Amino acid sequence: MNTQTFDVTGMTCGHCVSAVSSEIQQIPGVTDVTVDLAAGGTSTVTVTSDTPVSETDVATALDEAGDYHLATI
Amino acid sequence: MNTQTFDVTGMTCGHCVSAVSSEIQQIPGVTDVTVDLAAGGTSTVTVTSDTPVSETDVATALDEAGDYHLATI
Repeated sequence: MNTQTFDVTGMTCGHCVSAVSSEIQQIPGVTDVTVDLAAGGTSTVTVTSDTPVSETDVATALDEAGDYHLATI
Repeated sequence: MNTQTFDVTGMTCGHCVSAVSSEIQQIPGVTDVTVDLAAGGTSTVTVTSDTPVSETDVATALDEAGDYHLATI
């Protein structure tokens, strides 16, 4: 079991959390997604999966969910 | 045909606009709803209807849509 966290920008409300969670859940191997919402700031998305998920897969899921992006460091 | 505007707080994104528009559309007589989103501020909701809608009906629709409220003046 793998647990990874991703910093995500663009989420402002519970609807955004639902949209993002739903898309990331569809990445193969993902068993759980939790979001610590920082409305308008950088939210933390925690992904639990059988095998590690790639940043590319997460970024693609975010794009499919809406105008959400991995925070650049 | 009646056109009324309401000041609404609590909307932050397009999902909120969809939720609010959908609920207000269900008020009897309403034919069109448009939202000028002011994310995190006071948004303007314009309601077109056959007969005037009451503030109470709009407030109820906002509550059903989520944590949205008529702005108090």
